[in-house]
Amino acid sequence: MPIHYPNGNAYAAPKQSSAPRKHPNVLYGGRGMTLEDELNNANMYYLQRGRAVVYKKPTPIQIVKVDYPARSKAVIREAYFKTPSTTDYNGVYEGRYLDFEAKETKNKASFPLKNFHPHQIEHMRACLTQNGICFVVIRFATLHRLFVYPATPLITAWDEQTHGGRKSITLAEIEQHGFELTPGIEPTVPYLDGVDWLLKKAGTQRGEQE
Amino acid sequence: MPIHYPNGNAYAAPKQSSAPRKHPNVLYGGRGMTLEDELNNANMYYLQRGRAVVYKKPTPIQIVKVDYPARSKAVIREAYFKTPSTTDYNGVYEGRYLDFEAKETKNKASFPLKNFHPHQIEHMRACLTQNGICFVVIRFATLHRLFVYPATPLITAWDEQTHGGRKSITLAEIEQHGFELTPGIEPTVPYLDGVDWLLKKAGTQRGEQE
Repeated sequence: MPIHYPNGNAYAAPKQSSAPRKHPNVLYGGRGMTLEDELNNANMYYLQRGRAVVYKKPTPIQIVKVDYPARSKAVIREAYFKTPSTTDYNGVYEGRYLDFEAKETKNKASFPLKNFHPHQIEHMRACLTQNGICFVVIRFATLHRLFVYPATPLITAWDEQTHGGRKSITLAEIEQHGFELTPGIEPTVPYLDGVDWLLKKAGTQRGEQE
Repeated sequence: MPIHYPNGNAYAAPKQSSAPRKHPNVLYGGRGMTLEDELNNANMYYLQRGRAVVYKKPTPIQIVKVDYPARSKAVIREAYFKTPSTTDYNGVYEGRYLDFEAKETKNKASFPLKNFHPHQIEHMRACLTQNGICFVVIRFATLHRLFVYPATPLITAWDEQTHGGRKSITLAEIEQHGFELTPGIEPTVPYLDGVDWLLKKAGTQRGEQE
């Protein structure tokens, strides 16, 4: 997240697939791509195969001034970043509503909760109440490990933090309550594997037999 | 829709609730508000009451140049409107994925299909395949009539049009295959009534008893 605007939110700039990566010499599926690039590719992959319809939401912008030059496209000349009200990704998978956020950390032992904004947590809480499938795709960039972490334990950790609890989720907790994705060739971030795991777990908790 | 950018798409400008309306002297629920305003209010209403979590997606923008003035917010100085890949609204309602577009016409007898872009139709087609709940909220502004029209007959009309069929859907067809919303005081556009109708209809078609 190279750019932050003054309210502290990260600005997800239009990514170049040629953007320098932290570990250019490490060989793995999505090298040279940000997590956002890889998720967008996964979304296109799933869309083309009819498996799911998921998109990243555009960055919300407050437009103040637009020019309309003759014979060319409208140009936005003054605009400001707005704080998003929701998570970045949502869509539909076999009739179910999916809602997720993607986060990366260079930490090796824990994931800092400051990566989330309060409204993102509240949005996930509201979506869970509506029986949506909510989670975070967390990448430990240094470890090259990738998890689908359900919103429920994330919200628990968040609520504990606001009452003086720890300011991060340990990797051990993520291993225990999350689903580790095995990076593939295509898609490199096969997050629907984690969704299938979540749906199976939810079914089991409702007392269904596996 | 006061502004169109050169690819023909309407630009949904940041609306002012004081924006002049076509019929300032007509008394009804959402007077002085655009359909977009009213849908945003309905979404807030449903969210606050825990009934559904639905948001309008931000307008997609391609950012080219950003200034970072000292001690003030980042300013976007050059950016362009991009064609959206999807419909404008989506979210979750009792575990089901909702996806819809909102369109207004001044016509009195039919709704022109040119109000849709091909990618919006393709998006709805893909969402239906995933068993999402897809529809359009259509307002006949002059008639003060408001409908939830399911994506299925819309896509049928679209496909017929591409094979030389009519370029619009008649009001009679919309009355027959859609659900007319009764404008309320709050929300003024109670579109979940139409979603309940759609869900009930889908259940009946699956052979369930009412």
